[in-house]
Amino acid sequence: MSRPFTLFTGQWADLPLEEICQHVREWGYDGLELACWGDHFDVQRALHEDGYLAGRHELLAKYDLKCWAISNHLTGQAVCDHPIDQRHQGILPARIWGDGEPEGVRQRAAAELADTARAAAAFGVNTVIGFTGSSIWHTVAMFPPVPESMIDAGYQDFADRWNPILDVFDAEGVRFAHEVHPSEIAYDFWTTHRALRAVDHRPAFGLNFDPSHFVWQDLDPIAFLDEYRMRIYHVDCKESRMRLDGRSGRLGSHLPWGDPHRGWDFVSTGRGEIRWEDIFRMLNSIGYSGPISIEWEDAGMDRLRGAAEAITFLRRFDFDPPSAAFDAAFSSSSG
Amino acid sequence: MSRPFTLFTGQWADLPLEEICQHVREWGYDGLELACWGDHFDVQRALHEDGYLAGRHELLAKYDLKCWAISNHLTGQAVCDHPIDQRHQGILPARIWGDGEPEGVRQRAAAELADTARAAAAFGVNTVIGFTGSSIWHTVAMFPPVPESMIDAGYQDFADRWNPILDVFDAEGVRFAHEVHPSEIAYDFWTTHRALRAVDHRPAFGLNFDPSHFVWQDLDPIAFLDEYRMRIYHVDCKESRMRLDGRSGRLGSHLPWGDPHRGWDFVSTGRGEIRWEDIFRMLNSIGYSGPISIEWEDAGMDRLRGAAEAITFLRRFDFDPPSAAFDAAFSSSSG
Amino acid sequence: MSRPFTLFTGQWADLPLEEICQHVREWGYDGLELACWGDHFDVQRALHEDGYLAGRHELLAKYDLKCWAISNHLTGQAVCDHPIDQRHQGILPARIWGDGEPEGVRQRAAAELADTARAAAAFGVNTVIGFTGSSIWHTVAMFPPVPESMIDAGYQDFADRWNPILDVFDAEGVRFAHEVHPSEIAYDFWTTHRALRAVDHRPAFGLNFDPSHFVWQDLDPIAFLDEYRMRIYHVDCKESRMRLDGRSGRLGSHLPWGDPHRGWDFVSTGRGEIRWEDIFRMLNSIGYSGPISIEWEDAGMDRLRGAAEAITFLRRFDFDPPSAAFDAAFSSSSG
Amino acid sequence: MSRPFTLFTGQWADLPLEEICQHVREWGYDGLELACWGDHFDVQRALHEDGYLAGRHELLAKYDLKCWAISNHLTGQAVCDHPIDQRHQGILPARIWGDGEPEGVRQRAAAELADTARAAAAFGVNTVIGFTGSSIWHTVAMFPPVPESMIDAGYQDFADRWNPILDVFDAEGVRFAHEVHPSEIAYDFWTTHRALRAVDHRPAFGLNFDPSHFVWQDLDPIAFLDEYRMRIYHVDCKESRMRLDGRSGRLGSHLPWGDPHRGWDFVSTGRGEIRWEDIFRMLNSIGYSGPISIEWEDAGMDRLRGAAEAITFLRRFDFDPPSAAFDAAFSSSSG
Amino acid sequence: MSRPFTLFTGQWADLPLEEICQHVREWGYDGLELACWGDHFDVQRALHEDGYLAGRHELLAKYDLKCWAISNHLTGQAVCDHPIDQRHQGILPARIWGDGEPEGVRQRAAAELADTARAAAAFGVNTVIGFTGSSIWHTVAMFPPVPESMIDAGYQDFADRWNPILDVFDAEGVRFAHEVHPSEIAYDFWTTHRALRAVDHRPAFGLNFDPSHFVWQDLDPIAFLDEYRMRIYHVDCKESRMRLDGRSGRLGSHLPWGDPHRGWDFVSTGRGEIRWEDIFRMLNSIGYSGPISIEWEDAGMDRLRGAAEAITFLRRFDFDPPSAAFDAAFSSSSG
Amino acid sequence: MSRPFTLFTGQWADLPLEEICQHVREWGYDGLELACWGDHFDVQRALHEDGYLAGRHELLAKYDLKCWAISNHLTGQAVCDHPIDQRHQGILPARIWGDGEPEGVRQRAAAELADTARAAAAFGVNTVIGFTGSSIWHTVAMFPPVPESMIDAGYQDFADRWNPILDVFDAEGVRFAHEVHPSEIAYDFWTTHRALRAVDHRPAFGLNFDPSHFVWQDLDPIAFLDEYRMRIYHVDCKESRMRLDGRSGRLGSHLPWGDPHRGWDFVSTGRGEIRWEDIFRMLNSIGYSGPISIEWEDAGMDRLRGAAEAITFLRRFDFDPPSAAFDAAFSSSSG
Repeated sequence: MSRPFTLFTGQWADLPLEEICQHVREWGYDGLELACWGDHFDVQRALHEDGYLAGRHELLAKYDLKCWAISNHLTGQAVCDHPIDQRHQGILPARIWGDGEPEGVRQRAAAELADTARAAAAFGVNTVIGFTGSSIWHTVAMFPPVPESMIDAGYQDFADRWNPILDVFDAEGVRFAHEVHPSEIAYDFWTTHRALRAVDHRPAFGLNFDPSHFVWQDLDPIAFLDEYRMRIYHVDCKESRMRLDGRSGRLGSHLPWGDPHRGWDFVSTGRGEIRWEDIFRMLNSIGYSGPISIEWEDAGMDRLRGAAEAITFLRRFDFDPPSAAFDAAFSSSSG
Repeated sequence: MSRPFTLFTGQWADLPLEEICQHVREWGYDGLELACWGDHFDVQRALHEDGYLAGRHELLAKYDLKCWAISNHLTGQAVCDHPIDQRHQGILPARIWGDGEPEGVRQRAAAELADTARAAAAFGVNTVIGFTGSSIWHTVAMFPPVPESMIDAGYQDFADRWNPILDVFDAEGVRFAHEVHPSEIAYDFWTTHRALRAVDHRPAFGLNFDPSHFVWQDLDPIAFLDEYRMRIYHVDCKESRMRLDGRSGRLGSHLPWGDPHRGWDFVSTGRGEIRWEDIFRMLNSIGYSGPISIEWEDAGMDRLRGAAEAITFLRRFDFDPPSAAFDAAFSSSSG
Repeated sequence: MSRPFTLFTGQWADLPLEEICQHVREWGYDGLELACWGDHFDVQRALHEDGYLAGRHELLAKYDLKCWAISNHLTGQAVCDHPIDQRHQGILPARIWGDGEPEGVRQRAAAELADTARAAAAFGVNTVIGFTGSSIWHTVAMFPPVPESMIDAGYQDFADRWNPILDVFDAEGVRFAHEVHPSEIAYDFWTTHRALRAVDHRPAFGLNFDPSHFVWQDLDPIAFLDEYRMRIYHVDCKESRMRLDGRSGRLGSHLPWGDPHRGWDFVSTGRGEIRWEDIFRMLNSIGYSGPISIEWEDAGMDRLRGAAEAITFLRRFDFDPPSAAFDAAFSSSSG
Repeated sequence: MSRPFTLFTGQWADLPLEEICQHVREWGYDGLELACWGDHFDVQRALHEDGYLAGRHELLAKYDLKCWAISNHLTGQAVCDHPIDQRHQGILPARIWGDGEPEGVRQRAAAELADTARAAAAFGVNTVIGFTGSSIWHTVAMFPPVPESMIDAGYQDFADRWNPILDVFDAEGVRFAHEVHPSEIAYDFWTTHRALRAVDHRPAFGLNFDPSHFVWQDLDPIAFLDEYRMRIYHVDCKESRMRLDGRSGRLGSHLPWGDPHRGWDFVSTGRGEIRWEDIFRMLNSIGYSGPISIEWEDAGMDRLRGAAEAITFLRRFDFDPPSAAFDAAFSSSSG
Repeated sequence: MSRPFTLFTGQWADLPLEEICQHVREWGYDGLELACWGDHFDVQRALHEDGYLAGRHELLAKYDLKCWAISNHLTGQAVCDHPIDQRHQGILPARIWGDGEPEGVRQRAAAELADTARAAAAFGVNTVIGFTGSSIWHTVAMFPPVPESMIDAGYQDFADRWNPILDVFDAEGVRFAHEVHPSEIAYDFWTTHRALRAVDHRPAFGLNFDPSHFVWQDLDPIAFLDEYRMRIYHVDCKESRMRLDGRSGRLGSHLPWGDPHRGWDFVSTGRGEIRWEDIFRMLNSIGYSGPISIEWEDAGMDRLRGAAEAITFLRRFDFDPPSAAFDAAFSSSSG
Repeated sequence: MSRPFTLFTGQWADLPLEEICQHVREWGYDGLELACWGDHFDVQRALHEDGYLAGRHELLAKYDLKCWAISNHLTGQAVCDHPIDQRHQGILPARIWGDGEPEGVRQRAAAELADTARAAAAFGVNTVIGFTGSSIWHTVAMFPPVPESMIDAGYQDFADRWNPILDVFDAEGVRFAHEVHPSEIAYDFWTTHRALRAVDHRPAFGLNFDPSHFVWQDLDPIAFLDEYRMRIYHVDCKESRMRLDGRSGRLGSHLPWGDPHRGWDFVSTGRGEIRWEDIFRMLNSIGYSGPISIEWEDAGMDRLRGAAEAITFLRRFDFDPPSAAFDAAFSSSSG
């Protein structure tokens, strides 16, 4: 399909953006999905500092790279989350964390997301990728018993907090692509269904498809693409691998990434369980023409090697459909 | 093995205990695992009301039933939990919930668990079953990133809160059997390993084996019994059933029990995925001689029908081992 | 659910109806799904012979049986079929076969189906079960290449022939339940989708759910019930069993039923691959309250033994849902 | 099929035959497959002691039991085995073990097998079941490297030792049914093929089908019945169960029966992996009309309970085929 | 094995043969399996036009290509087919279709197949690949009930129509390789068995092995090669891929190739389910030394990319067996 | 990890060592695991011939190769084996075979293994790889019944024969790496457990991990590495492939390597069932830093092609772990 291939810079935020540009150019990427952290893309500078956005464009252009989407997972997470704790402090800018009082954190995060839409528009991209957070994720195991009203309130909270943000997205002509992911308001097939309904299927709210989170949930990413085809605004190609042996389970055992006793883990794209062939064929079928972004995470492999091999691996699936049906040739009979 | 079969009364707490006694006698149970809620077993009355315990014994005896263990899952859950919220309010006695300030709730719950050991001893049973709660369960999806120190602190919190309780258990000659279960400090193979280490493998802290929670985690309950054989203090036979179809996932989608879009559900014992034959053979191998308690939950079936069929189903696996090896007979040669 | 259980009489048409009544009464059935062949239910006598229908009712009542649906698979098959050949001659009444000229056969069959609706109404049942036939089934392997226009024409032919019949159904207040089945216009998930669209989803056209035909197609009968819940007008419980070993395939090898080299076969209900537990739970979920009809076919077993054991087997799944959620009892805390 | 059901007495040789007769009569068996050890059937007394055989017949008749086959696995094993060691001493009569010199043991065993044929004929049964032993079984793992000539010699040794025995079988009108089993010259599909060829497919040499040995070899017992249908002289219904978890393997780890770390084990018939439904349907297809003999071995269950439940379990599969094709009824059209 | 690799030109018949020659030479093919349609190989010109065959040879030689087999699937299909309809009209030359009267079409097709043998012989190749058609394929779902006599007649029709054609093949020293394929008289393991028997296993009738048709039938292509080793006259390497998700079934739902709701599809060789490693090892074992022909069909991929990657993929499996057993080296002991 | 890659020379012993050096250098290997047979490494010359070891070092250095371990599988096999027969004669040096009297063979083999430790030390390598043999392997199928005392004696025999050898290893500062393998005293998870216990877990006795032998036993090689991490002294990368089809079983049917009716076979590394990705990740986790040695066996492929592709294949898994956790980058927030 000759779709552009990008690298998501979120896991590389310890590196200066220019160093990343050098790498990805060499590896054959077409562009970057810029993270709104590290020094990669600063929402506030974008809105308030003259020349910042032009500088970003120049830097990308210097390496013949483009940007189709920016990502603000980290701040987005705080918009709805409960509880808010040290985990958020670890990933939020100090000005958003502030004194850490949860409701204040949530409101500053929401304001930042609205600003992210404004910055994206100013930068010339129409897609912001991110997380929503969730006030009910911690009830996932259903014990203590969870009243249905509590679930209802969780989706309502999501709608109440995100609708004003999405109003800004609409005003700016930008759309938000939520990454379906455990910890979030929409983490699987049916929670996506409910989250979309909670915001009345407004077009400003769509999805970032990342199949790595489907693997350990036993979900079919192809069926997901088929069902939500109208809302697939962006694609992140992260990979997962299972190692279930009866002792290592699906819930991770509170073990760190890369621990061999985890039942599953993120691995370099191409080294896991995902049926990329089927995914790319379905992306062709539903007419997705946006970027293919590689989100690279592997706690067991050096990233310089991994990000290079990942794009080689994935390009293999990015083929064009034929111009005619193969059995049409059977009608070319001779006489 | 002629082990006793009991019914756990937790899901029947809306019924007077005597009504339950009538049912289980008729269905062929040998006794009850009494819940410390409803009117079934009241810890404070047991400790402070003359004749209460004698009355419980008389009631059981009237129906030729016995009790080998009492259960206090609901209050136990609050000992370590974070966050504490309306879910806990729904299941805790008012005197423990109090004003709902979390730390106060936790401490009152801890005191009640210590009292539960005292009440058990007074009642003449040496096993209390329950949950521990957990201050880190909500981090299960590992995003936002969880510092290892936060996990360490979670296990330390568990040890700090439970060691004093377990001291009372030791003093009373009673042991606590934690039910390995998502939402708890030990919910799978490796978290059990770590929880046992956190309390220095003290014998007062053991396990209530309930395989229904292993199914959706893809864990092998037989390997679990093999590994933790010395800590299997009680067995609850609850059942689970999977319905994974690519759309319904393992994490439940915040859907209520019995919803057909859930990827798994609890069902009447004997109607699910659990290999009971292997479990009972392993229980024989490790020498478990305690009660077989049926914890009956099925959001799709009437419980009066279900609890009756469950014991018939399970008795089929409660066979005696042979007195001699079968191939010993080959040596009885004729001449 | 205390749904009525019936036996479909189609495979017993060599026996007088009264003999069947004697058997099923003894085996514990509640009624019959009467076939419109043999001497079981004669559409023309029903319409034209005084006392015929009263006699049928009396016979059923004599054995305390009821009828909720009648079936006319055999004649229905001829409405759309192409080619029409000796197979149809073998199952059609002589007056419908006539001279065997295909278009004449199809039109007489269509007229008979309209009469079947009239007879059902006169008999007091509101469901007629049957097949539609198909003019395009023979293209199933897609070689020689099949123009899309040919498939379009096949569905149009179905609509053209069945809409006038369904007009009579509407007029009579009766509905047609098509059995989704290879050889028919709707034989799987997506052909059902298209067939319903072809008749504009008119309510007169619904489905007879029979999971035995899903097994060899690798279809999920539970997902089917979920999707087409509004159109499940009747349920036939026939069973299938696979014996795939690399040599015996899914397409049957033109071998007769019961041949051990077939890759699959119909077997007595309860002796195959179907997950009846999930099916009945889904029937409860979607609120199906009609009869459970056993369609018994097993080329390897005597039917008198089989039909008796099948109802015993299936009754096990016909349980009532509970009156309250099991975890509601957790709130009955003591104080 | 109303085939007779028998119990193989080999694992009950510590009990007097009359006690076994009492049990099996009560459990509903039709007869016994008598072992030539214990006091059950003594080949030499049968040949040399007046009234011995009449006494056996009287004892069986007293309990309304019959015998269709006798078994001499233990002595048969020694005919070809290499090495001969304490294992054989443990199961052989002293007069056959003698001084234990291997070739002498083998020859005395061969003579005893010939006598077994004579005794069977005198007793009025035409089938002797047993093992052949093997001089090459110990090479099964193929290291040290095994020259093809060594395998060739193994089959030749089998033919050389058994052909003279089979000559006696032919002379007596009796046939030998070798149980396909690891440790023997024929233990799977292809070794059976070669063993039959080694004795030129002479009809005196057939097979005792016991699917329990197929389970851990991953062999398809149905395909075996299909292929060797002409040589299925007897059927033993023993059962196996797998417990593969990555640590327990298929080769048994030199662990005793019943050890939970074995990857597989024999279990009471009906409690394992075998698809009995398919086996009995194939037995119907190939026209097997001999006895169904239950060989009961389960190191984890009391045999008195097990042998009683096994026959109840298996009778469920012993149904008659129908008298007519089910779809023949479709032609009984009304008019 | 250094077998030649060819491309089947059937799906490229819209291109002039020379253009194909240019492509395949560049991609590394050794030759072509020429289709008897498009301008690739014209049977009548081959027989009647001076210099035609020499011209074909010259063209191939110009690109250093060879031809080992020609294919006439399209006309072969019409020899036995019933019904004959617009699908055949779409793929047959006008002179064979004629007025479309079915029996006339069949007879002209049969005559053309005989001519194809003559043309092959004249061209210097000894293998003609193709389809037989079938008069009974449309009965595959076995409803309406199919009398055994109708199946018998179908195989007899095949023998009656093909034996005269095969007489010409014999006379010309050419053999016919039927592609086992749904829609044909032999489409799986057992129908192949019966079709071979129908023509008395005459050597003129053999098989073109194409595993892509085995995938959706759940057949084992390796077992097929083992069983029919003597009849494997040619190998076509087409590939299939399954996408079964409970909604998309094995029978294709009358959906066009490439539709994402099909349960299976043809894909570029190397991108599907086929275990090519096992197939090539078995081809080595049975001594197949003919061409490996790539039949390329993928409704989702551009063919110029696909046909190039397919040969690279397959060459990986075309390795030579060793000259000596690896464990022979163990005997090279030092002294 | 930049571990060295070596080729095991055992299957190449028909070639002069220098020829092998030429090949492996060209293919990119870093060194050799030298076999103590052929002309590769002669234990007695190493101990007694001046300059022999220097010459070996020079030869390796000439091709820039190194040696980290030597192997003496063949002689090791005879230390415990029973029976001793022509198979051993085929692989032992004449001076060890001698007159073939079993006990003499065993003792000479034991002496040679002690000498192998001395030779390794003299050569400067600290690991000797090999087999132990077993006196009880032939009892693997557990019939005739095996007394537990016989198994006990087998492990005692192993300890009795190997402890004196291991004393020499300790004295020389060399360790023995037993290859876990059917035919040996330790062939799976639990026999390894018992063998280690039999020699009191003395450090001189460790393991050579070769996953090819785990495949047909259905063992999990990853769990094995996890459990025995302290004893993994060397890694051999041989590969296996299953072809189970119901007829070909796990026990090999006494068929030669490469026969298509075997249920499994050794194949060129990278062409089988082994999950190398998981193996290398676990090797990283347990800190294995020794050589990765390719043991190449494939009865269906030319070894010159295979050994070249195997190293290319395996290098793909030999990646470095990252220097920091990927989610650490999330903390690089901007401000």
